[in-house]
Amino acid sequence: MTTLAAAILTHHEVTVFLLSLAVLLGLAKLLGEIARMLGQPSVVGEILAGVLLGQTVLGSLAPGAYAFLFPADTAVSSVPIGLETLVVLSAILLLLVAGLEVDLSSVARQGKAMLLVSSMGVVIPFGLGFGFAYLFPGLLGQASSELHLAFALFMGIALSITALPVIAKILIDLNLAKSDLGMLILSSAMVNDLLGWIGFAMVLAMMPVASGGDVAGASGGVSGGASGVWVTILITVGFVALMLTVVRWAAHRVLPYIQAHMSWPGGVLVFVMVLAILCSALTEWIGVHSIFGAFLAGVAIGDSRHLRENTRKTIHDFITHVFAPLFFASIGLRVNFIEAFDLQMVILVLVIAVTGKAIGCYLGAKWSGLTQRESWAVGFGMVARGAMEIILAQLALGAGLIDHRSFVAIVVMAILTSLIAGPAIEKLLKRKTQRTLADAINEKLFIADMKAHNAREAIGELAALASPVVGVPSKLITDAVWQRELAMRTGIGNGIAVPHARMPEIKKACLVVGRTERGIDFDASDGQAARIICMILTPQGDQTSQIEMLQIVARAFTQPRARADAFDANTYVEFRAALRVSQVDTDHTHQA
Amino acid sequence: MTTLAAAILTHHEVTVFLLSLAVLLGLAKLLGEIARMLGQPSVVGEILAGVLLGQTVLGSLAPGAYAFLFPADTAVSSVPIGLETLVVLSAILLLLVAGLEVDLSSVARQGKAMLLVSSMGVVIPFGLGFGFAYLFPGLLGQASSELHLAFALFMGIALSITALPVIAKILIDLNLAKSDLGMLILSSAMVNDLLGWIGFAMVLAMMPVASGGDVAGASGGVSGGASGVWVTILITVGFVALMLTVVRWAAHRVLPYIQAHMSWPGGVLVFVMVLAILCSALTEWIGVHSIFGAFLAGVAIGDSRHLRENTRKTIHDFITHVFAPLFFASIGLRVNFIEAFDLQMVILVLVIAVTGKAIGCYLGAKWSGLTQRESWAVGFGMVARGAMEIILAQLALGAGLIDHRSFVAIVVMAILTSLIAGPAIEKLLKRKTQRTLADAINEKLFIADMKAHNAREAIGELAALASPVVGVPSKLITDAVWQRELAMRTGIGNGIAVPHARMPEIKKACLVVGRTERGIDFDASDGQAARIICMILTPQGDQTSQIEMLQIVARAFTQPRARADAFDANTYVEFRAALRVSQVDTDHTHQA
Repeated sequence: MTTLAAAILTHHEVTVFLLSLAVLLGLAKLLGEIARMLGQPSVVGEILAGVLLGQTVLGSLAPGAYAFLFPADTAVSSVPIGLETLVVLSAILLLLVAGLEVDLSSVARQGKAMLLVSSMGVVIPFGLGFGFAYLFPGLLGQASSELHLAFALFMGIALSITALPVIAKILIDLNLAKSDLGMLILSSAMVNDLLGWIGFAMVLAMMPVASGGDVAGASGGVSGGASGVWVTILITVGFVALMLTVVRWAAHRVLPYIQAHMSWPGGVLVFVMVLAILCSALTEWIGVHSIFGAFLAGVAIGDSRHLRENTRKTIHDFITHVFAPLFFASIGLRVNFIEAFDLQMVILVLVIAVTGKAIGCYLGAKWSGLTQRESWAVGFGMVARGAMEIILAQLALGAGLIDHRSFVAIVVMAILTSLIAGPAIEKLLKRKTQRTLADAINEKLFIADMKAHNAREAIGELAALASPVVGVPSKLITDAVWQRELAMRTGIGNGIAVPHARMPEIKKACLVVGRTERGIDFDASDGQAARIICMILTPQGDQTSQIEMLQIVARAFTQPRARADAFDANTYVEFRAALRVSQVDTDHTHQA
Repeated sequence: MTTLAAAILTHHEVTVFLLSLAVLLGLAKLLGEIARMLGQPSVVGEILAGVLLGQTVLGSLAPGAYAFLFPADTAVSSVPIGLETLVVLSAILLLLVAGLEVDLSSVARQGKAMLLVSSMGVVIPFGLGFGFAYLFPGLLGQASSELHLAFALFMGIALSITALPVIAKILIDLNLAKSDLGMLILSSAMVNDLLGWIGFAMVLAMMPVASGGDVAGASGGVSGGASGVWVTILITVGFVALMLTVVRWAAHRVLPYIQAHMSWPGGVLVFVMVLAILCSALTEWIGVHSIFGAFLAGVAIGDSRHLRENTRKTIHDFITHVFAPLFFASIGLRVNFIEAFDLQMVILVLVIAVTGKAIGCYLGAKWSGLTQRESWAVGFGMVARGAMEIILAQLALGAGLIDHRSFVAIVVMAILTSLIAGPAIEKLLKRKTQRTLADAINEKLFIADMKAHNAREAIGELAALASPVVGVPSKLITDAVWQRELAMRTGIGNGIAVPHARMPEIKKACLVVGRTERGIDFDASDGQAARIICMILTPQGDQTSQIEMLQIVARAFTQPRARADAFDANTYVEFRAALRVSQVDTDHTHQA
């Protein structure tokens, strides 16, 4: 009778836990969205939310509120344990999604490149980190001179590990996760991290002190003593091999049965999650950290074509939108960035981390035949650190390997490199996000309920709206568009019309959108009257932008649901929402 | 630096937590699915999973394994706190989904019926429970004679509270949640529970002992002393009014902005969840239990037509399939059902609970003008107890109101009434689940890759397969179907053909399905060659079953994706999976 809920969490703990969860998740999502709007990866905003709510800002400005929301002492309150549980789960689910995104056939295809990038991406930063730490331990914050070798090894490893979840998120944000380059970066990071974690387990196994209570983090249940390291390595390698062969094969066989006989999509959803959590438990037990198990489970299952796009999407939506912000906010929450900040050490760690990783991976990519630009993209992609580094640094701090300043330097480095990676790849690959109708429309150039009764009037009504914006008389526009309309009618079917004209007076492409309840005949081949009229005005000499605009409009209304929602939209905001929803779906279908 | 993850959860705790979570979730889902296949609500299987893994079975048969998986002492291990956190969250999210399903306009429409059912559903069982407990406290397991009045009040309340989440799940399983009858049951249960919880808060407020540590569960942060009860009631009523007016109005206004400007569906998803968690924190603080806040948040948001079906579906899928099994399994996990089992008390509690509730709600429904049969359906629908009762019983146990036997009796009653409710409604309403093609097909009567080159050969090939099963010579079948085919070709378009015949030799409707890569011309109006051929054989005199079968086939292939998946299916299992997936989607669209 002692295992009852009332005895486990008190009324006050439940209240505080729910409040802190809501605040953390809400702010993380809000700042993540703002970061995204500003063209930054949402990770940045999410970590910032944690910094604002953590010791650094809230803890300094309103220590009472901070202590109430995020009590630190687990002996007094269960709230930190509850939050930490969710963070552990979030990390696991995040890696599961990252794993599901991995396309093994693509990894195999670039086998050589992957091996070169991941090995060079480890060797160079490890060498730099180990060398510096061995020669100048004070500069990098050695905590105890007795553990000199272990400290140097740790710094080498800490600087050579890549943050798989951060990179996965950045690549997903840039819509690169399924590209060959994205796959090269992801799979290299995977191999790279595996090596790093095994190395770290070795370092902890080397230390006599490391067997104490809360430090046991990375020294697994299997390892212990000198031979333990080898046991850990062997078991890990065996586990990876098993997951990528037997489990992968079995998952592919089992999935159709689950889909045929169990409730859908619940059956598959839970199967995928349970397998991921089981594998996490196993890798945590082995001593290679729980999240690797989840990642491998994702890889094993994600490769099966039986995993339906719809199930993938449900898993993906829930995890990347709910658990990812929670996880990244928790990172910002953990440290006081001002108190233990040592500028010199931060810069040193940052320079070693960035140059070592970027150059190492660049060389690996270059040698495997990628172009100069792609090689640098790989190099800077791999530069991103994050969760891994921070977990590692935390374990090292607990083990007495590094001091507080060094800890903060590694965390700051992890955050800054996460910031660098996205924009660097974006710039190097000159990747421009595809423009959509939702981006092209403008509240000033939108009529929710047109008055026109026929095509001629409709064009006139839209021209009148465009006139002040483009600085061309309304009549001139009407005439030009109507001339073009007479030459060939512009109803493209499904209730959409795209009257357009190129005019010498127009300096920049301009789109005016009108919605009409009654429907106006634009002589579409399917006979449907137009209910949405997108008038496109482009400069005389510019064929490209007219074609581009026409494509954007056509693409936006491909989906029946987008059309239905847009037809029903009574306001600009609703219209835009209709387009955005359809846009997401289209992207997704496109990826499949 | 003390708030680091390594210090919060040890390596061993993470391992155990993940393992127990995976085992619990996996077994709950598995048994839930088996229950569903046997025609029981999946809740039953999910609770059973907890019973098997809890003290009752695993704890008795393998105490070592039980103690390892589910350590009880929070001072020694953080695992129970971690699991409890997830259970609290699961309950909140479950009620959020239940709230999202509520259609306020439908509640308002049956205002009188709802008030009659909910008030009678409280008055009668409360009277019975209070009376019995007051007159025969020993029979119902009074723990202390000093608290005689409080004990009697508690038993009255415990027997009059309905389990909203259980009922919601049962109604969703029966596809009744959106029907007027389902709405009547759900909304009555909601009002009913609100009254019950407020009553329970009053009972706890009455008790001088109730202010101690872990008992503080229901005596809120606001209430304290005699006037506290009234404060709690006032705040609760104010909160409900606020949620159903201002928050509901605001949510409807804010949703389109979120959909227009934030990432989709993540923005809405997180908004909905954060609002639900915030409201939960608020109600927990008020003292009316966290899950009410979530439910009200669901009601306030769910009413907005701006909440897209797709977002609803993502939330719904993830929560009902992942968090619901976890929550219900945790119920079974909590008690040893054998040790503290008192048959006499169980029967007494059960009889009072069932008759009081069923008769009370029956009378309420009858008086408000429902038919005899519908009134009993409402009565037995409201009979379901579950989570609520158990949480309540737990709090009462902690407060020293009831003893262990009484606790187990209430829990057993809660589970048994959950079992009764579903089948009772099913039987009373003669509700038959619609037959689908996935149910009608048979592995023995399926050809994954037909050899036939034309319609005549195809019919012959399918007839040969059917012949041994129906016990009619192949040639006879072929001739009958071919005659019918010549009279009017049976290609129904979209690559589907339905050759069929009624024959005196056939005793029972029979469906034979063939899939062909090459496509066979059945003269469909859209000119598409048939790639799936469903041959339907029915008894001569039975027009109905032929029509039904034709409808089932047509309905199964309405969706383009179902067709595409079915065309690609290489095996029976894949074919069946394709049909099931489409079936779920159709149901969902239909509900919208």
